[in-house]
Amino acid sequence: MSKTMLTIDGLQYSNWSREIFEQMREGGLDAVHATLVYHETTRETLTRLGEWNRRFEAYPDLIMPVHVPQDIAIAQASGRIGIILGAQNCSPIEDDIDMVEVMRDLGLMIMQLTYNNQSLLACGCYEAEDSGITRFGRQVIREMNRVGMVIDMSHSAERSTLEAIEISERPVIISHANPESFHPAKRNKSDKVLKAIAESDGLLGFSAIPSI
Amino acid sequence: MSKTMLTIDGLQYSNWSREIFEQMREGGLDAVHATLVYHETTRETLTRLGEWNRRFEAYPDLIMPVHVPQDIAIAQASGRIGIILGAQNCSPIEDDIDMVEVMRDLGLMIMQLTYNNQSLLACGCYEAEDSGITRFGRQVIREMNRVGMVIDMSHSAERSTLEAIEISERPVIISHANPESFHPAKRNKSDKVLKAIAESDGLLGFSAIPSI
Repeated sequence: MSKTMLTIDGLQYSNWSREIFEQMREGGLDAVHATLVYHETTRETLTRLGEWNRRFEAYPDLIMPVHVPQDIAIAQASGRIGIILGAQNCSPIEDDIDMVEVMRDLGLMIMQLTYNNQSLLACGCYEAEDSGITRFGRQVIREMNRVGMVIDMSHSAERSTLEAIEISERPVIISHANPESFHPAKRNKSDKVLKAIAESDGLLGFSAIPSI
Repeated sequence: MSKTMLTIDGLQYSNWSREIFEQMREGGLDAVHATLVYHETTRETLTRLGEWNRRFEAYPDLIMPVHVPQDIAIAQASGRIGIILGAQNCSPIEDDIDMVEVMRDLGLMIMQLTYNNQSLLACGCYEAEDSGITRFGRQVIREMNRVGMVIDMSHSAERSTLEAIEISERPVIISHANPESFHPAKRNKSDKVLKAIAESDGLLGFSAIPSI
């Protein structure tokens, strides 16, 4: 049966290996949003990128980097998994807006503005209070829009998420979380957030972690 | 008169500005090897790259980055200066061979293995003794060859330069120095080195600094 769609895993972290990539291919995946970093600094993020460069060199028959959307179709046509690198937090840019473009040039395609806690950009879902998108956060959202880096609010709190959707001129995604109406949890998303995501032409990826 | 050649400045450092780029264009330059860093760390090098990204954004009518040789012809055809970024020392890669590819991905096209002093890779021209290319240096030369980053030995000592030419499978350049036979100075190059550079299909760019 010839494929007519692209099958993309919305987020994975893994102890990456040939075996894992072979399993992904056997499972029919065309691309995966792969977590590059959680809390690493800018310099540490480069080390993680170096590890991915070694993987791309070691497994050219199985994986290739995705730097533009068309790369996913190329991956599919060549029977490989397209790797869409993403950060689960904004630590790769530290406090330096110039690092948004530098990281995009290196292939960081997706970045969460927060991971559970308050960041320099926004508030995470486990803080007691959510004061919304910060002053620096507003600038970073505009810069991510400019260079083409996807804003992911999976681990963010409600007000910050709604404000990010409002400020961003491009769709915002929630790559991995579940509807709060299915299961109440701070990591899950209210109907209000899901409606705003839908109206921004964004997407929700379900999370299979039992605790949420 | 239509141009039939590409005119490239072998190396410049400057307090870059619109005025400087306009002067370069009036002078008929198609491209310039522009110094990105001297002794900056990996992280600091990213800050310098961020500054260049801002210049590319501010002066799109005057400059563009060169990431492949064809970009120089594109710069010429569009009346702009192609910017070929280079490091005067190997500090951007610190002690991490993975940073060669990361820096190449960010547009660092040329790197000197040393700047006057001993480095982790080779010996500079002002050291009392030159023990040649180091163990790490041999690996970095091969990696620079693999990813397509030009080896520049302008500020290196004689034995290290000859060994780099011997080890490298691609041409080695001396972007800025003068023949020792014109003017004796530690920064200048012996006939032996110039002959080896020529035999590697490399190049020598003259330096207009009075002291050398």
